[in-house]
Amino acid sequence: MDRRDTGSGPAPDEITESPEAQELIPRLLTGTGVSPGAGYGPARLVVGDVPEPAAGSRHDGDAPAERDRAERALDEVAADLEERGARAGGDAEDVLVAQAMMARDPELAASVGLLIDQGVAAPRAIFEAFGKYRDLLAAAGGYLGERVADLDDIRDRVIAVLTGLPIPGIPLDAAEPYVLVARDLAPADTALLPKDLVAAFVTEQGGPTSHTAILARSMGVPAVVGCAGATAVEPGTPVLVDGATGRVRLSPSEDEVADALRAEEARRAVLSAAAGPGATADGHAVPLLANIGGPRDLEAALAAGAEGVGLYRTEFLFLDRDTAPTPEEQEEAYRAVFEAFPHGRVVVRTLDAGADKPLPFLPPPGEEPNPALGERGIRMFRRHPDIMTAQLGALARAVTGATANVEIMAPMVATAQEAAWFAEACRTAGLDSAGIMIEVPSAAIRAADLIEVVDFFSIGTNDLTQYALAADRQVSGVAGLQDPWHPAVLDLIRTAASAASAAGKGCGVCGEAAADPVLACVLVGMGVSSLSMAAPALPWVRAALAAHTLEQCRTAAAAARSSVTPGDAVEAARAELPGLHQLGL
Amino acid sequence: MDRRDTGSGPAPDEITESPEAQELIPRLLTGTGVSPGAGYGPARLVVGDVPEPAAGSRHDGDAPAERDRAERALDEVAADLEERGARAGGDAEDVLVAQAMMARDPELAASVGLLIDQGVAAPRAIFEAFGKYRDLLAAAGGYLGERVADLDDIRDRVIAVLTGLPIPGIPLDAAEPYVLVARDLAPADTALLPKDLVAAFVTEQGGPTSHTAILARSMGVPAVVGCAGATAVEPGTPVLVDGATGRVRLSPSEDEVADALRAEEARRAVLSAAAGPGATADGHAVPLLANIGGPRDLEAALAAGAEGVGLYRTEFLFLDRDTAPTPEEQEEAYRAVFEAFPHGRVVVRTLDAGADKPLPFLPPPGEEPNPALGERGIRMFRRHPDIMTAQLGALARAVTGATANVEIMAPMVATAQEAAWFAEACRTAGLDSAGIMIEVPSAAIRAADLIEVVDFFSIGTNDLTQYALAADRQVSGVAGLQDPWHPAVLDLIRTAASAASAAGKGCGVCGEAAADPVLACVLVGMGVSSLSMAAPALPWVRAALAAHTLEQCRTAAAAARSSVTPGDAVEAARAELPGLHQLGL
Repeated sequence: MDRRDTGSGPAPDEITESPEAQELIPRLLTGTGVSPGAGYGPARLVVGDVPEPAAGSRHDGDAPAERDRAERALDEVAADLEERGARAGGDAEDVLVAQAMMARDPELAASVGLLIDQGVAAPRAIFEAFGKYRDLLAAAGGYLGERVADLDDIRDRVIAVLTGLPIPGIPLDAAEPYVLVARDLAPADTALLPKDLVAAFVTEQGGPTSHTAILARSMGVPAVVGCAGATAVEPGTPVLVDGATGRVRLSPSEDEVADALRAEEARRAVLSAAAGPGATADGHAVPLLANIGGPRDLEAALAAGAEGVGLYRTEFLFLDRDTAPTPEEQEEAYRAVFEAFPHGRVVVRTLDAGADKPLPFLPPPGEEPNPALGERGIRMFRRHPDIMTAQLGALARAVTGATANVEIMAPMVATAQEAAWFAEACRTAGLDSAGIMIEVPSAAIRAADLIEVVDFFSIGTNDLTQYALAADRQVSGVAGLQDPWHPAVLDLIRTAASAASAAGKGCGVCGEAAADPVLACVLVGMGVSSLSMAAPALPWVRAALAAHTLEQCRTAAAAARSSVTPGDAVEAARAELPGLHQLGL
Repeated sequence: MDRRDTGSGPAPDEITESPEAQELIPRLLTGTGVSPGAGYGPARLVVGDVPEPAAGSRHDGDAPAERDRAERALDEVAADLEERGARAGGDAEDVLVAQAMMARDPELAASVGLLIDQGVAAPRAIFEAFGKYRDLLAAAGGYLGERVADLDDIRDRVIAVLTGLPIPGIPLDAAEPYVLVARDLAPADTALLPKDLVAAFVTEQGGPTSHTAILARSMGVPAVVGCAGATAVEPGTPVLVDGATGRVRLSPSEDEVADALRAEEARRAVLSAAAGPGATADGHAVPLLANIGGPRDLEAALAAGAEGVGLYRTEFLFLDRDTAPTPEEQEEAYRAVFEAFPHGRVVVRTLDAGADKPLPFLPPPGEEPNPALGERGIRMFRRHPDIMTAQLGALARAVTGATANVEIMAPMVATAQEAAWFAEACRTAGLDSAGIMIEVPSAAIRAADLIEVVDFFSIGTNDLTQYALAADRQVSGVAGLQDPWHPAVLDLIRTAASAASAAGKGCGVCGEAAADPVLACVLVGMGVSSLSMAAPALPWVRAALAAHTLEQCRTAAAAARSSVTPGDAVEAARAELPGLHQLGL
């Protein structure tokens, strides 16, 4: 998985081997491979933004006809959203039905009608009427503010209908699996995406921690991000994607496709051969655990051979509701997970609300110009200890009688005082293993102080990278800095793992870094004692570890840490990990 | 300056010595001393928020009279703002005149009138009409969004006039210097504050890096923040403030006042005795430099004996204007500073726009949910290299013929690649000393890599603390984490200073930490080679360094770094710095 082989344009050896070279269409694009595997199919492009209808555009004077046109377009879009919702079911249905309701809002229709009566053309009237709603939502901020994207989506769909443009969105039916090509993918784009319809993802933007990368890994679909020139590919062009090397081959020959699919099959064979508990080639055990959001994720975790749960994100119990879940609801959700792993480890992270996950019943205490640096995670517990006490109480009751090895940890701990406070609260609740996430740089730097007062660490590499590089995970303009391979991040991980090891305690990693088979070897080489990831990544990581000795992992880690740039760190580590080749990585 | 001696309530020995103890009014409050010195005067309280007029409140039916009342109140407030502006002059006048224009906005008056015609009482009509404007501004975000506070201020003033409440704001005239007591101080509160009118500041909220603390140090006025119970003090009560120990004594005896003022005089004598270049008692030179925003700050810097400028914040040339300053404007502003220190060092920081300092002519490229983690500092230069080239060109022309030792540095550098790119740009422009700010944790952690490609470091402790602890500088809810004494921050400073020293290069500190005389000794003990601060802090830091040997500073630094909490770090350092006593620190 050569993540650094970026840049676009034809490789020199590609230009002469095909007549296409004459047409200046490169046959090979390259980006960053973020989800390994080979995928082949015709390119399907996600339609981009619908352009803003020109200000001052007027209709021809027949206002009633124009109003009718606008109303029919709104209705068509609402009906389409409802139908897509019914087809999707579950949470996605709720989201889409809520969107359809916005499109059917009578006040909105009245605003549109009023503008049309003043002579404004229907597309522009839609644009302006939605704009007013948009401002109100944006001003409300928080959860409502984030609905702005939903509103924009409806607006664009209606304008597309009115102007004869293709309706934005991802095609949900196709005769054969397609390669989805887009500038970037938003969560809303992908809520409905059926896994067996997508052979691979290719996006022009995004990095290893982008939404597309996370989605692709959790679906087990090959993906290449940061692939310049991808959206210029002619729709329907057959595309062969290598999610390990980041290579995207256009109109490949039959032989190329056959070779790639054969190699993929061989890889899958190696993958499935690596069964059982995680360990290096020389038998150093590294428990491989799954990240889950609730009981619904258990099936995939068990199917992928997870030895337990390394990160149970309990905030999903709390989101999208007006009141906190009752102690009984909580207890039930926790018990279901504990029972799925009667002899395994289950690490529960207490509520990580705030920042990008606001709770309606726990608004932030004031304006937060930078929510990621505000009262999130354990900081919110310090203001609302009752929420913490209720959660720890429910956990303690759910643990009673469970045979799983249950451990509790708190997010966003920055200091030894916070760690000690949380550990004491766990003890008071009757819970006997209390740990913390290491995701704030100060906690990693002073890990030796913090490990004194807790039982284990679990490193959250996504946030740790965000804070160490001061680069927002949500902003693509600083995506180049959001790289867990940055040697500064590796140093912080090493500091935390060493401190835990010196104290005879465990230090896991539960961020996206653990799902990268190459980085997983480096993490183990730095002393990380367990790895937790989205279930589909487990076989790859298991196979990568099984192909190397602990000593090889250590050498790779030292090589990565003596590099200056993330790109050099990857290369240096790969050079020390020869077993990656048989995995096609 | 015992910054940790917090908590309020009477000290045990205070209760019995005065009849006031019977009335349950403590004679001694304590907070965090953030600007040393003794101040004495009657307490003047800043009036707090004006309460929201009740929803649904109606006038008695005489709408024209009520409209007249509202218009007169708006006019009175506008006139008052204009008068205060004319008295203040300069930048403050611009701010206040802009506020007065908002109060005189005819559309706003029309909205108010419309509500009054519908029966709404004038105060409520003001509240609601301003509310609509407020939402629009808030939705606009960025610079406009920050004007919300100005709008709220006008609204509160008008409502105060209408309801007979005292007009919010700081008294600008008084027969004798007063002790200003407030919940907290906003920049707008203090723009006009005449230094000789304020004997001391006392606020209930805020920490060492709060606006009040920064303001007090830059004015050279004693200040205590985080002082619980302060706003309950009866206005007019004589108050004696010790900005070093954080003690606030109410109704002190004549002897107590005389003692304090005598001690203050002795301190000032020690301070003024420590003249000349900065150095430890055993002659280890530590150049003491000033932080400035432009030529207007030069006088204070020279008066305080600054040996040069350690941080010239050039963004002040760029803020509050619609276009970038011309090369000629820039050159002139730079040359004025270089000429003020013909034999000194002048460190110029290139434009640090973005985050809390957006530029109208350089909007962020997209939504930034966390501007502090977005495209600020050098990241903006990567998107707009023309702005950098123009600034470096103007600096190169201004350097020509200057005898000052001019050095250029970039803010928000996170990686060695960024550092190398900036250094190359400086060389290309013909500038021969290029450095970087160390304010992103990754830059401190990998300082050994970064120092290879630049000529010097300057540590920005405010941002470094913000990112290392993931705690927003602007949010009081996480103020407890924003402490440069946190051992994790000290570790990062030590790493950067050691790397620079090993490479034979300089490492200064230009954040607020350098202005704390105790922490200044610790910084020197960690290998920091120069200190830059607001001019009024220079004598204190000069005296504190002169009172200790380099070895004592080193011992204090080691003691601080072996502590676990910021409070323990202060105590441990103070125990090794006996010379602080003669300074009353």
